[in-house]
Amino acid sequence: MYRTNTCGELRLTDAGKKVTLAGWVQRVRKMGGMTFVDLRDRYGLTQIVFNIENDASLTEEANHLGREYVIQVTGTVAERTSKNPHLPTGDIEIIAEALKVLNPSEVPPFTIEDESDGGDDLRMRYRYLDLRRNPVRRNLELRHRMTMEVRRYLDGKGFLEIETPMLVGSTPEGARDFVVPSRMNPGQFYALPQSPQTLKQLLMVSGIDRYFQIVKCFRDEDLRADRQPEFTQIDCEMSYVEQDDIISLFEGMAKHLFKELRGVELTEPFIRMPWADAMKYYGSDKPDMRFDMRFVELMDVLKGHGFSVFDNAEYIGGICAKGAASYTRKQIDELTDFVKRPQIGAKGMVYARVEADGHVKSSVDKFYTQEVLQDLKKAMNAEPGDLILILSGEDTMRTRKQLCELRLEMGRRLGLRDKNKFACLWVVDFPMFEWSEEEQRLMAMHHPFTHPKDEDIALLDTDPAAVRADAYDMVVNGVEVGGGSIRIHDSALQAKMFEILGFTPEKAQEQFGFLMNAFKFGAPPHGGLAYGLDRWVSLFAGLDSIRDCIAFPKNNSGRDVMLDAPAALDQKQLDELQLEIVKPAE
Amino acid sequence: MYRTNTCGELRLTDAGKKVTLAGWVQRVRKMGGMTFVDLRDRYGLTQIVFNIENDASLTEEANHLGREYVIQVTGTVAERTSKNPHLPTGDIEIIAEALKVLNPSEVPPFTIEDESDGGDDLRMRYRYLDLRRNPVRRNLELRHRMTMEVRRYLDGKGFLEIETPMLVGSTPEGARDFVVPSRMNPGQFYALPQSPQTLKQLLMVSGIDRYFQIVKCFRDEDLRADRQPEFTQIDCEMSYVEQDDIISLFEGMAKHLFKELRGVELTEPFIRMPWADAMKYYGSDKPDMRFDMRFVELMDVLKGHGFSVFDNAEYIGGICAKGAASYTRKQIDELTDFVKRPQIGAKGMVYARVEADGHVKSSVDKFYTQEVLQDLKKAMNAEPGDLILILSGEDTMRTRKQLCELRLEMGRRLGLRDKNKFACLWVVDFPMFEWSEEEQRLMAMHHPFTHPKDEDIALLDTDPAAVRADAYDMVVNGVEVGGGSIRIHDSALQAKMFEILGFTPEKAQEQFGFLMNAFKFGAPPHGGLAYGLDRWVSLFAGLDSIRDCIAFPKNNSGRDVMLDAPAALDQKQLDELQLEIVKPAE
Repeated sequence: MYRTNTCGELRLTDAGKKVTLAGWVQRVRKMGGMTFVDLRDRYGLTQIVFNIENDASLTEEANHLGREYVIQVTGTVAERTSKNPHLPTGDIEIIAEALKVLNPSEVPPFTIEDESDGGDDLRMRYRYLDLRRNPVRRNLELRHRMTMEVRRYLDGKGFLEIETPMLVGSTPEGARDFVVPSRMNPGQFYALPQSPQTLKQLLMVSGIDRYFQIVKCFRDEDLRADRQPEFTQIDCEMSYVEQDDIISLFEGMAKHLFKELRGVELTEPFIRMPWADAMKYYGSDKPDMRFDMRFVELMDVLKGHGFSVFDNAEYIGGICAKGAASYTRKQIDELTDFVKRPQIGAKGMVYARVEADGHVKSSVDKFYTQEVLQDLKKAMNAEPGDLILILSGEDTMRTRKQLCELRLEMGRRLGLRDKNKFACLWVVDFPMFEWSEEEQRLMAMHHPFTHPKDEDIALLDTDPAAVRADAYDMVVNGVEVGGGSIRIHDSALQAKMFEILGFTPEKAQEQFGFLMNAFKFGAPPHGGLAYGLDRWVSLFAGLDSIRDCIAFPKNNSGRDVMLDAPAALDQKQLDELQLEIVKPAE
Repeated sequence: MYRTNTCGELRLTDAGKKVTLAGWVQRVRKMGGMTFVDLRDRYGLTQIVFNIENDASLTEEANHLGREYVIQVTGTVAERTSKNPHLPTGDIEIIAEALKVLNPSEVPPFTIEDESDGGDDLRMRYRYLDLRRNPVRRNLELRHRMTMEVRRYLDGKGFLEIETPMLVGSTPEGARDFVVPSRMNPGQFYALPQSPQTLKQLLMVSGIDRYFQIVKCFRDEDLRADRQPEFTQIDCEMSYVEQDDIISLFEGMAKHLFKELRGVELTEPFIRMPWADAMKYYGSDKPDMRFDMRFVELMDVLKGHGFSVFDNAEYIGGICAKGAASYTRKQIDELTDFVKRPQIGAKGMVYARVEADGHVKSSVDKFYTQEVLQDLKKAMNAEPGDLILILSGEDTMRTRKQLCELRLEMGRRLGLRDKNKFACLWVVDFPMFEWSEEEQRLMAMHHPFTHPKDEDIALLDTDPAAVRADAYDMVVNGVEVGGGSIRIHDSALQAKMFEILGFTPEKAQEQFGFLMNAFKFGAPPHGGLAYGLDRWVSLFAGLDSIRDCIAFPKNNSGRDVMLDAPAALDQKQLDELQLEIVKPAE
C-alpha cells in the first residue's frame, strides 16, 4: 500500500487524520524554518509542510527534493492558516512525519505547468512528460468520458458493439490503404481498414440490427493539421431504417453528449439544410452556423453597369458584416490580402460601407450610382454601420468557396465564433456523384454504397450528375463531425452503381463480390453513420487541432518522434516476408 | 418507419393492436386455407398468419415466400389458439393484412438454425449468414455485454480508457511482429502492437495513475485452434500499487463479471498458488481446479523394488481417480494409448485398482508386495473403488506435464470438468527467467519489464535462474485468462535486466531507449495486468475455441475466407511503397 489517499481528496473534515500520499514534486519552497512541497498526482495537488522544529533532518531532506521527484509522504492532515481558495485541497496541508524518495528525476526538458515553456517538437519527443500537464491530461479524461457516454447511450438503444477485423482486404478505390505483408501467405498483403464500412453492412445482412463500434481506422494520406494516419471512428449502422430514423437517433446522442459533457442543453431540433442551400448561402458543405452572414447573390443588382470585373462574372455574391462600417482602410486591405492569398485565390474584393445617414460609399463608386448602391443595400438587408463585402468570379462554386473563407474570417474578427457556443445542423441531400478532373470520371461523393434518393433513381440512366443521395452530415461550428447515408441493399442497384463509377463487372466482383453476394441472401434495408471521435473531442475541448486529444499522435510526416517509428527492419524480418526494398525508378 | 415493433416483443397484452413487423422468413407452413410464416429478427420470432378466407391473393403471395426472404408485414395482434410456451411471443400471432417483400433471398448454402447443416468452411465463407444463427449471435451479444461491464467496473474504479497507437515501432524481441510499410518514409516500417505494454508503462510515467484499454493486439505466429493473428486484450495498468492491490482489484472485477453475466456468485477469495506448487501438484501453470486429483510423488514408495522403469526414473507421480476402479481393460488401454500419443510422449502407464475389500491390484504386481501396494494406497489417500494411475520419467518437468494431461483426461472422463462450474485461482511467484534451448540463453518468462521479487534481487548476480518475479496469472478452469506483473520503474534495474537477457547496452537503448529514458524523469512504482477478452468470452459462453466469439475470424492459415484476404497488391501500390516481392533463396 503506497498511499492512503490521492493528492486531490483531502478536505478540512479530514483534519487530524494520519495519511500517506504519493506523487510528483511540483514545487519546493523554503520559508525560514519551513519547507513547503506541492505534491501532485492526476487527482490534484496537496501541500506538504516540513518544519525544522519538528524534524530538522527530514526538512533538510525535503530541501533537496527536485522537480518531478516521485515521493511518498506520511503525515497528519492539518488546517491551513492561509487557505488557498483556488485549490480543492486548499483548506488543508499535511504536516510531514516521514518522507521516502520512490524515484528521483532528472530536470525535465520543459516545465510541467499548464502553460509550458516546451515547444511542439520537444513536447512530442517527451510526450510522457507533456501528458503530466493538466490541460493535456484533461483532454484524455474528456475523451474517456465521451466514449463511456457514447457506449452508455447506444447500449441503451439496443446497439451491440461488435469488433470488426483490423487485417482486411485492400480496396484501391477511395483513399490509400496501409498494407500489411502476410508471412504465411507470401507475396500477399492485408490492408488496415479505412473504415469498417463493408463489414458493418455485412453485419446488417447478419441481422445484427443495431451495430456500433468505437474503432481505429487508417488512411495513408498526406497529413494536415487535423489529420492523423490512424484515427478513431464512432461507427454505427442500423437495419430497417430510413434517413429520419437515423438522424433523430443520432441527434439524440449528440444532445446527450452536449448535456453530459458540456452541460449544454440543446432543446431545438437541429436545422436540416439541403447541400445545395449550404453551398448557395454559405459556400460550404459544413457551414459554421454560430453566426448568420449568409450570402446574397448580386448578379441582378451589380451586373451591366460598366464595371468589367462584375460584367464578366458568372457569379457575384456579398456578405453583410454588421457594424463593421468603421473598418479602417488598413483593415480592409488586410481582408483584400486575405482573399488574394493563393490558398483562397480571389482576384480582389469590393466593399461598400453603409454610413450613418444611410448613404452607401463603395470602392467602386465611379461605376455605380447611389441609386444602384441603395439597391445593393436593400438586397443585402444592410443598415447604417454595416460593411458589405463582395466577391465575384467566373466559376460559381470556386467563388462561393472564396466568399465562405471571407465570411469565416469576418466571423472570427467580429468575435462571432465563440468556442463555448455550439451550432449544430444536418446537411442533407448531397449529390450522389462528383466529377473528378483527375480521373475524368464520376466519383462517389460519399461512397459507392450510398443509396440514391428514390425519386432520383430514374436519373441514374439519363443524368447521373443530377442524382441526389440519401446522405447526411452532422456539422457543428463549421466542423463535419460525422456523416452517413442510407445504403444500397439491392445487388442489382449496387452493380449499376459500380458501372456508373467505371468498374467493369469483373473488377466490381473482384473487389466487392463478397458484399454483392451477401446482398443476394436477404439483405435488409439499412443505413448508418460514423462520427470522428477525435474531432468530437477536440470540439468539446475547444482545441484547434485533434492532436492534443490523442495520447500519442504522429507528426506531419507520419512519425512518432517519441518511439522513433517507423524504422528500418532487420534483414531477417524482410527475408521472412519475402520483401525487398527498391529505389524508385528515376 | 419500417416497423412498429421487433419480432421479439409482442405479448398477449398487445392483442388487438395493429402492428408492422419486418424480418427474415424462418419458415412457411401451409395448413389448409391458412399459411403460417415464422418471422425472425435479432430479437425473436413471431408467427404471422395468412388466411385464404380473409385475403386469398395475399395468402397466395405468402405461399411463395422463400427461406430468408426479407419481408414487411402489417396486421393485427391476436391471441393464439394453440400457444407455444417455448417462445416469448408464443401466446400471440399476427393476422396479416399487408405483405411486402423488401428483398428476396437465394436459397442459403446451409440452414439458418441453431444446429446448422453447414460445415466449418462453408460457415466461414458465408459468415454473414452464420451470424444469423442464434448460438453465434448470442456469443457476440455476450461479448458486447462483457465489454460494457468491464468498462463500467473500471470506470467506477477511476480507470481512464486511453487509446494507444496501432502504428508503433517493431521490437524483434518476443513474438513476431506484423509490420506496415511507410510510404512517407520509404524503406521504413511501422509494427502493429503485440500489446500496448511499453505505452501503458509510459502512461504511468505520465501520471495517468489508472489506465485501461480494450484493444486489438497482433502476433504473427503460426496459428492454433485458440490463437488468432489479431486478438483483443483488456489491458490495465496502475500506479503506486503492489501485487496485492492489483490482485484484489481484478479479482473483484472477475467476480463482478461472473455475477452480472453468468449469475454466479463467487464469494470466497481466489486461491493464490505459487507457480512451484502448481507445477508440483498439477504439472501446469494453469491447473484446472474444478476437481482435485492432485499429484502424489511416489519415489519413496515405488523406487528400489526391482521394477527397472521406476528404479531408473527421476520422477514417479500418481493421481487417484475416485471411483474408477471399475474401469475395464479396454478403458485402461485407451488411457495408456492416450499418454503414449506423440503430443504427450509418455512411454507407458502403470495403474492400480483398490478393490472393495481394500486389496490393491496393480499392473506391476510381480514387482511389488501387497504391503508396498498398501503403502501406495495410503500415500495416494485411495479408497476402495479408486483407480491409481502412475507415470514416471527421467525428466521431472516433462513427466509432470504428461501426468497433467492424464489428469485432465480423467477429469473429462469422470465428468468433473463441467462448463457451468467455475474454479478461479491466481498462480503467483513465477520464475523471472526460463532457459531457452533454442537461443541458449535465459529468456524473460513474462517479459523484460517484470519486477523481480525484492527478496530475490540479490540472486540476479549469483543465480538468475532462481529469481522469482512479482508476476501473476489468473486461471479459470485450466485456462489462463489473464496475467500481469509489477514492473520495473528504475532505469538501472531495467538496464541490468536487459543485460541478463543478453542485450548489449546499445541494442537495449535502440529498442527500449524511450522507456529507459522515461524512467529517468520520475517513474512511479506501477504494475498491471491484461486479460484475453476472446478467452474470457469463450469461457463464459462455454465454447471450445475462441473463434465463435469473434465476428469475422481468420482460419488457421491466417486467411479471412469471406473477404478473401490477404491478397496480391496492385503493382502501383508496391511501387508507391518502394517494395518488391522476392522469391526466397533456395
